[in-house]
Amino acid sequence: MIRVGVIGYGYWGPNLVRNFALTRESQVVAISDLDQARLANAQQLYTGVKVTTDSHELITDTTVDAVVIATPVSTHFDLANQALQEGKHVLVTKPLTSNSEQAHRLIEQSAGKNRVLMVDHTFIYTGAVKKIKELVQNGKLGDIFYYDSVRINLGLFQHDVNVIWDLAVHDLSIMDYILSTQPRSVSATGMSHVQDQPENIAFLTLFFDNSLIAHLHVNWLAPVKIRRTLISGSKNMVVYDDLEPSEKVKVYDRGIDVVADQKSIYEMLVGYRSGDMLAPQLDRTEALRAEVSHFIQCIETGETPLTDGESGLRIVKILEAATQSMKNQGKLETLAG
Amino acid sequence: MIRVGVIGYGYWGPNLVRNFALTRESQVVAISDLDQARLANAQQLYTGVKVTTDSHELITDTTVDAVVIATPVSTHFDLANQALQEGKHVLVTKPLTSNSEQAHRLIEQSAGKNRVLMVDHTFIYTGAVKKIKELVQNGKLGDIFYYDSVRINLGLFQHDVNVIWDLAVHDLSIMDYILSTQPRSVSATGMSHVQDQPENIAFLTLFFDNSLIAHLHVNWLAPVKIRRTLISGSKNMVVYDDLEPSEKVKVYDRGIDVVADQKSIYEMLVGYRSGDMLAPQLDRTEALRAEVSHFIQCIETGETPLTDGESGLRIVKILEAATQSMKNQGKLETLAG
Amino acid sequence: MIRVGVIGYGYWGPNLVRNFALTRESQVVAISDLDQARLANAQQLYTGVKVTTDSHELITDTTVDAVVIATPVSTHFDLANQALQEGKHVLVTKPLTSNSEQAHRLIEQSAGKNRVLMVDHTFIYTGAVKKIKELVQNGKLGDIFYYDSVRINLGLFQHDVNVIWDLAVHDLSIMDYILSTQPRSVSATGMSHVQDQPENIAFLTLFFDNSLIAHLHVNWLAPVKIRRTLISGSKNMVVYDDLEPSEKVKVYDRGIDVVADQKSIYEMLVGYRSGDMLAPQLDRTEALRAEVSHFIQCIETGETPLTDGESGLRIVKILEAATQSMKNQGKLETLAG
Amino acid sequence: MIRVGVIGYGYWGPNLVRNFALTRESQVVAISDLDQARLANAQQLYTGVKVTTDSHELITDTTVDAVVIATPVSTHFDLANQALQEGKHVLVTKPLTSNSEQAHRLIEQSAGKNRVLMVDHTFIYTGAVKKIKELVQNGKLGDIFYYDSVRINLGLFQHDVNVIWDLAVHDLSIMDYILSTQPRSVSATGMSHVQDQPENIAFLTLFFDNSLIAHLHVNWLAPVKIRRTLISGSKNMVVYDDLEPSEKVKVYDRGIDVVADQKSIYEMLVGYRSGDMLAPQLDRTEALRAEVSHFIQCIETGETPLTDGESGLRIVKILEAATQSMKNQGKLETLAG
Repeated sequence: MIRVGVIGYGYWGPNLVRNFALTRESQVVAISDLDQARLANAQQLYTGVKVTTDSHELITDTTVDAVVIATPVSTHFDLANQALQEGKHVLVTKPLTSNSEQAHRLIEQSAGKNRVLMVDHTFIYTGAVKKIKELVQNGKLGDIFYYDSVRINLGLFQHDVNVIWDLAVHDLSIMDYILSTQPRSVSATGMSHVQDQPENIAFLTLFFDNSLIAHLHVNWLAPVKIRRTLISGSKNMVVYDDLEPSEKVKVYDRGIDVVADQKSIYEMLVGYRSGDMLAPQLDRTEALRAEVSHFIQCIETGETPLTDGESGLRIVKILEAATQSMKNQGKLETLAG
Repeated sequence: MIRVGVIGYGYWGPNLVRNFALTRESQVVAISDLDQARLANAQQLYTGVKVTTDSHELITDTTVDAVVIATPVSTHFDLANQALQEGKHVLVTKPLTSNSEQAHRLIEQSAGKNRVLMVDHTFIYTGAVKKIKELVQNGKLGDIFYYDSVRINLGLFQHDVNVIWDLAVHDLSIMDYILSTQPRSVSATGMSHVQDQPENIAFLTLFFDNSLIAHLHVNWLAPVKIRRTLISGSKNMVVYDDLEPSEKVKVYDRGIDVVADQKSIYEMLVGYRSGDMLAPQLDRTEALRAEVSHFIQCIETGETPLTDGESGLRIVKILEAATQSMKNQGKLETLAG
Repeated sequence: MIRVGVIGYGYWGPNLVRNFALTRESQVVAISDLDQARLANAQQLYTGVKVTTDSHELITDTTVDAVVIATPVSTHFDLANQALQEGKHVLVTKPLTSNSEQAHRLIEQSAGKNRVLMVDHTFIYTGAVKKIKELVQNGKLGDIFYYDSVRINLGLFQHDVNVIWDLAVHDLSIMDYILSTQPRSVSATGMSHVQDQPENIAFLTLFFDNSLIAHLHVNWLAPVKIRRTLISGSKNMVVYDDLEPSEKVKVYDRGIDVVADQKSIYEMLVGYRSGDMLAPQLDRTEALRAEVSHFIQCIETGETPLTDGESGLRIVKILEAATQSMKNQGKLETLAG
Repeated sequence: MIRVGVIGYGYWGPNLVRNFALTRESQVVAISDLDQARLANAQQLYTGVKVTTDSHELITDTTVDAVVIATPVSTHFDLANQALQEGKHVLVTKPLTSNSEQAHRLIEQSAGKNRVLMVDHTFIYTGAVKKIKELVQNGKLGDIFYYDSVRINLGLFQHDVNVIWDLAVHDLSIMDYILSTQPRSVSATGMSHVQDQPENIAFLTLFFDNSLIAHLHVNWLAPVKIRRTLISGSKNMVVYDDLEPSEKVKVYDRGIDVVADQKSIYEMLVGYRSGDMLAPQLDRTEALRAEVSHFIQCIETGETPLTDGESGLRIVKILEAATQSMKNQGKLETLAG
């Protein structure tokens, strides 16, 4: 039985608490938040749990085996660092840290203390993303041409990070998981529409070694919610719409066939192929439930998490470069190998 | 009665012919195409029309008052230039020309000959775009924050222009019409996935004097067709979905209210406003029918077309700069005033 | 070359004329309508065609081989009967006649005169319906459990027939084509919401020899347009949505598995099966184009039309019985074998 | 503080428990279910709660003020009757009882014991249904022409009631709430596709004193989930789609205008009106949360619940008549005043 303490009971924290509470191999023993009203809400539901406004008290609590951090990004490093030092296993909400230097240090700390460090890249644990990875790995899509995502809604403004750090992090973690290659450079543009606030709309283009191109489109100030990713390959194309109630992943047997000859100026050089569309059955386990189980299992077996510190670091490096490019209106930033 | 000759009876030509045929003030007297089979198809439907594979014959036909050019972009300048020289009024499909130098010369030519030069920016004549312009002009949206468009499908590859010249031209012409300001610079990225062919996927960011930002997303190689534009302002937001059968324009009473105080690190600085959504009734006249009537009227009255040579030129300048930026992976290109 | 005369140039007539005009094996030589303005419109597009307000003149025109009737239902019998007597082949828009007695007489007349009698059940000629018939015939769906259709919109009120005769006729013709069995009885309900006008909303339940049940839902007074049919079988289920731009037919590997045992009062007796969904590629030929070609071919070869007088008669019989049941608020009407 | 005991922790029970647990004025003190594994799940989440497989123990527990019954319909009467006799307030999931006789007795019992009897007609407490009632009451829709609902999915088969008792009960309770009039008769059809099981697909038509007509379409064996209701009036029409994430209620300014004259056989008698569509902002409180608060309030103040025993009885009467009509293939059943 892994005893869990959760820091942060705002938007995402209650979901983490619920899933650890529902999992038989874990038990939520403590919750910390700066806001007393939130702690009262937590105790209304979970009568036995200890609550505190002092995260340090939770971190040093010897009855706690694992610390889950669901606080603003700027606090991730300090809290995770302290918890690792206290010998706790740590699960951090995304993104792992505010910069790559911090991510490096957490990775070292967790290695030195021999404790699990995992980042909550939730989408990796969905049936949809697991199915897409399977399609890509099996060669069903052929050579990947592009990864193109739109992730927009009327979302919460965050004052300590821009929209890239809040939303694009999801797409970057999905790409990190399903593609076998890493981006080499990034060009990003964006804008803030609220004075003294970080950018609320942004567009990222990622270049790779070959003709693969990725584009991410994130926006906190959209009238409608869209969560749609297109992944196009030489053989098949995928549309992944996370808002579809059941058919989240659709595989289209569509593409182009290059035609050899060109008869006249009016003729098209490229022919089209259009076949069936298949929406495969997906695993419907709640992603957070699967993720929580995976974290518990990594603690118990010493297994490396699917979303370990290294994957958290790779994503943070891209977030840093994209933010830098955005400041320079799209100027290309190289990503260090 | 304006007697019309149409050059090009491929994809778009038949639509132009049909609309001129249905309009009582005009009559299609001649059709030219390099392909005999297409001409045979034209004569099957329009028994009285003259057909020829020689565009010069049509241009110099003295019974023709106006020449409509529906051929690949690379041929626009020569054909339009000849027609103007012969004293014909000219309607050219988009984009007006292959470069801004050619557009300048056509504008001069039409002024010198006192003939109408109009470009077929079809969307300007839709009920949806007219309604959006009205909303923007009336201040219903407030200050415009962004214009964000996705225009993708499994479209025809063109071998003489990239996807920006084929698809982004639509969005640029709509923006040119509804916004009262011109972009100052552009950053574009894109990729070709077919050897020796122009880019089939591209992303454009346009910067303006203020915090307005525009982003265009165009793709010939998408498994699904999307035609969606978001226009967000300080007061209201618009979603324009051209594939919606009836509610193409939706006005959302949504936005942000900046909140003065910040109580704690967990508090959000910005509040949200979410109210009713209104889908206004739209004029359902076929856009091409309205455009054809407008062309005829400009010929008869000497009125300047809504989509005149100057608007065609403004769009071509942006297309040139975007193509240049795309070659340099997003490097910012300034647009000359 | 079959020379065609078309009676009725209102809503549907122009579509028929266009398709006969586009077909190389036929030629539209005459058009008749009571309204002079409509005839002027026809001549604006088709400069060579003869026009008349006198349908008798068209029917007795010796240069006409085939008469196409696109007028209100109440006029179908007289016009078709005259045309057959004059030795013309006849294509009648749906439904074939106002009652089954008239349908019987047209069938006899066409047999006696050895002329083609065909009814314009357009949907039979769509790629979607052809694909569904194929799925049913191949046993892909298993035993058919139900056919359930919703066909509603803000449609034109007709003053000579109720909504069943206008809209349900489509579904009845599709069922007649794809199912291998005929309904045995019908229960219908409906209502008129405009004084002295026929019913504008109606619901039909059709019973068959086995546990197959069909339900049709038709409405002229709906705020939105819906064209959706569910066909459920023991193996797979089909959703046919005619308004979907591309995936009109979706095949769901879903169903029930009867479970043998019942452990307690809370246990469910029936298990669920949920697998992939497939949207097969469909033939995209315009239905009316395929239908017109089929009519021409039947004239030329003596082949029996897919939608012959007999299929027209079967549908009219159901329409009569449903109207009778509706008058009696759902009282079951038996359909004569 | 109202102390609540919940009987039945299967599909719906956990939702009721969660909402009573989240409400500050109530506390869940006991849960009963026949299945030990379910009780273990309950205790994993709610550590302090008493659990038992014996519902009688819960009902006679003197620390329990109110009993919530979330068991199969056939058990509702006995459990509710016992609980009322023990002086408990009672909330019963829908439908109230298996027949109207039982409903009458529960109403009498609750009156005699002066205890609250409420039925869980959840939809009444949604922002969407409250908004529709407001629109109808304010005369925004004009005279109501029809209420037309489709409620289908691949749902759980129930072995003790047919699909009408499981699904149509929702629509009947919504109609009971928003319309100011009661149906006078019902015609229903349906079918069972699993041997010895109740009907899994059914269609109900309800007649009223005037030309109002209602139609309900319910199905446990559908490949897709649909929850759509159309309510049409002489002034405006409403589409209520419960699966829409945000715009669940759309008000269409559409309808018909009766035109006085009829010029010819081809002219339509009725004209169409098509204006704006408005999707009003809705209260987003979770319905069950609002319902639970209402139940607590009725206990504390003696107020009559919105969904009291009488409304439960009215719905059960229609369910009985519809089931009877369905046995007779649509034969009209009169509903006693």
